[in-house]
Amino acid sequence: MSFLAKYTMATINSNYLKLKAGYLFPEIARRVNTFAQANPNAQIIKLGIGDVTEPLPKACIQAIVKATEEMGNRDTFKGYGPEQGYLWLREKIATQDFQARGCEIDASEIFVSDGSKCDTGNILDIFGHDNTIAVTDPVYPVYVDTNVMAGNTGDAQDDGKYGGLVYLPISADNNFIADIPEQKVDLIYLCFPNNPTGAIATKEYLTKWVDYAKANGAIIFFDSAYEAFITDPSLPHSIYEIDGARECAIEFRSFSKNAGFTGTRCAYTVVPKTLTAKANDGTDVEVWKLWNRRQSTKFNGVSYIVQRGAEAVYSEEGQEQIKALVNFYLENAKIIREQLTAAGLQVYGGVNAPYVWVKTPDGLSSWDFFDKLLQTANVVGTPGSGFGAAGEGYFRISAFNSRENVNEAMKRISENFKKSAVVA
Amino acid sequence: MSFLAKYTMATINSNYLKLKAGYLFPEIARRVNTFAQANPNAQIIKLGIGDVTEPLPKACIQAIVKATEEMGNRDTFKGYGPEQGYLWLREKIATQDFQARGCEIDASEIFVSDGSKCDTGNILDIFGHDNTIAVTDPVYPVYVDTNVMAGNTGDAQDDGKYGGLVYLPISADNNFIADIPEQKVDLIYLCFPNNPTGAIATKEYLTKWVDYAKANGAIIFFDSAYEAFITDPSLPHSIYEIDGARECAIEFRSFSKNAGFTGTRCAYTVVPKTLTAKANDGTDVEVWKLWNRRQSTKFNGVSYIVQRGAEAVYSEEGQEQIKALVNFYLENAKIIREQLTAAGLQVYGGVNAPYVWVKTPDGLSSWDFFDKLLQTANVVGTPGSGFGAAGEGYFRISAFNSRENVNEAMKRISENFKKSAVVA
Repeated sequence: MSFLAKYTMATINSNYLKLKAGYLFPEIARRVNTFAQANPNAQIIKLGIGDVTEPLPKACIQAIVKATEEMGNRDTFKGYGPEQGYLWLREKIATQDFQARGCEIDASEIFVSDGSKCDTGNILDIFGHDNTIAVTDPVYPVYVDTNVMAGNTGDAQDDGKYGGLVYLPISADNNFIADIPEQKVDLIYLCFPNNPTGAIATKEYLTKWVDYAKANGAIIFFDSAYEAFITDPSLPHSIYEIDGARECAIEFRSFSKNAGFTGTRCAYTVVPKTLTAKANDGTDVEVWKLWNRRQSTKFNGVSYIVQRGAEAVYSEEGQEQIKALVNFYLENAKIIREQLTAAGLQVYGGVNAPYVWVKTPDGLSSWDFFDKLLQTANVVGTPGSGFGAAGEGYFRISAFNSRENVNEAMKRISENFKKSAVVA
Repeated sequence: MSFLAKYTMATINSNYLKLKAGYLFPEIARRVNTFAQANPNAQIIKLGIGDVTEPLPKACIQAIVKATEEMGNRDTFKGYGPEQGYLWLREKIATQDFQARGCEIDASEIFVSDGSKCDTGNILDIFGHDNTIAVTDPVYPVYVDTNVMAGNTGDAQDDGKYGGLVYLPISADNNFIADIPEQKVDLIYLCFPNNPTGAIATKEYLTKWVDYAKANGAIIFFDSAYEAFITDPSLPHSIYEIDGARECAIEFRSFSKNAGFTGTRCAYTVVPKTLTAKANDGTDVEVWKLWNRRQSTKFNGVSYIVQRGAEAVYSEEGQEQIKALVNFYLENAKIIREQLTAAGLQVYGGVNAPYVWVKTPDGLSSWDFFDKLLQTANVVGTPGSGFGAAGEGYFRISAFNSRENVNEAMKRISENFKKSAVVA
């Protein structure tokens, strides 16, 4: 990587050329649009992209309106805020999301951002390109694509995998829980409750990963964007409920799915001050300092009015309202599980998680099942193969929709698939 | 950059260790806090960080409140929006900011984001590490620091410069307008109206840069975050007012300084579809496609309610209100220029720009002048040396404050410096 090398023109980051086709969700949108144009009367129900459908909690609306009015008054106007987020929000997060569950996380270790998608991508900025990186297969595509862009992988192979990445298969064979690798890896992406499979992690399982990471000097990127959907009291919501995780894990959280902030944009990342990694001179460096520098230099904080909206999530009314929202989607998930099972389909997930993971019937490929569902039931889901090679033959149904739409979609699927479905 | 290389632990991006001290503005905040704690009764006036102080335009407030109410209703609720921004906003930007000035920019070439700081940093994601990169000296520190982080530079040298970067000095000697380099560079950062010097660019001058870029296959990063402060009708607001710029320039714009969005967060980047750069196999690649992919994968769009606020800037009332805001700050700049000149200081900028660039008196260093101004007048400015080695001996005063504070600050400075000031 010589910065003195000379070309005849400005050059691009050629790693981008390794990326395959489009990102999954734009491809789904393209197929849906094509179908909709050809079938203008079709009442399409979207259970594909994991986007919420219900309004923002009232407490959030009220807080945002109040904050907006403050912005109209010189005395209460807010200009640049702290790049890391306002302390009043970071403190509530630390207290209620972590300390209340026995996790020793301080407000200074919380970095408020505009999205977990951004954070899980941007986190690679502060790590070396020589790390061995592990992802599950299937996996949230952003983890893989951002590593490709960063030059942390080789080329795409015929099976859709990228050289240089370590893929940990998850399927019905291992209950969608990746085996701890025998080889040494440096950075590991874990997502629980899992997107896309809806699988959950026990404390015992996460303890194995923390032990592995500590033994190998590895760092876990723990994506718990869906933690609000956990209802089983024995399950951990945070990796920091595991002893030793402060020395080996970064956690990503979001207000997108608990409070419906997908279009409002607020999330946060936890970087414990006790987490270190190696510099190329062999010294240990605090990862917190690097992320703080990264955010201070390349980010300017989340909109004040949005942070006030996020803060309202932690009020008594806010907590009640998000609980109602989450329960609403969980009831959808239950209906989806039950109806698809009754239709003869094999389903996984959808308990403690908003995603139901379906085995495609009749040996259909994931995209064939996508097209069939779209054409016969006018229902949009997400092909499992879009999440990785081992997702082939599976399909994700999201519980994020109105009760009416979920019921109607299940009715149509039942009618269309009851006969042809084969239990996997 | 071998992804197979193995270390004993997860490794960091060691380029971060090349970064010097803190980012400029945190260091200012640290010194101000120390002074304030030692002098609790001091009435400190901040003309340092370029942060606005006046309330959001009424049109924006109304639009944000209305949009927030929509988020509380299922029928008008908005989840994920397009990563590139809503078309209704992109179209208004393209029409009113560009087409109205004769620039051939289409809505599809506008990428709405949460800040120009983010965009000018993130843009490096899509370019190669082998480009030769030019910045002015002094310069907005984010351009330099993000290149250091990305591994596009060598180490910091004793003079504060980084190896591998091409520095184009700007000073009173060249009227703060960089000479077109004789050597070949690939990526060039230009900022007009300039931060920190307040210098402006004529069409003739920008034409020289566009001609240079086209002749050398270079790309100009044109930061016009302060274009709203241009009142001279002969000056270009956009690089796309120059013939050929669509083939060689990316432009960064912000709502921070025209509409007071520093705490509300909205900006945009223009990437013409006619702009190409070289891949490592020698092919020409559309830069638009790469940025679109980057934003789709690592960003999730700006908050819906904030985009509605930005849209209101383009309404008739919005336009009137932002004009009043800009004129208010420009009048501040005029007062600062006049008062400092009367106090015997040599000043530059502050016309068509919100920044006044002051030659420090008595041969004081920038930081010595900072400390003196803080201690004697309780006024905070920004040391010119914080923007680069050639900024040493200069000082930035921002016009972003209330009239009352500007008048009071100028009164105090006049009293303290009238006698000691020496015309440079």
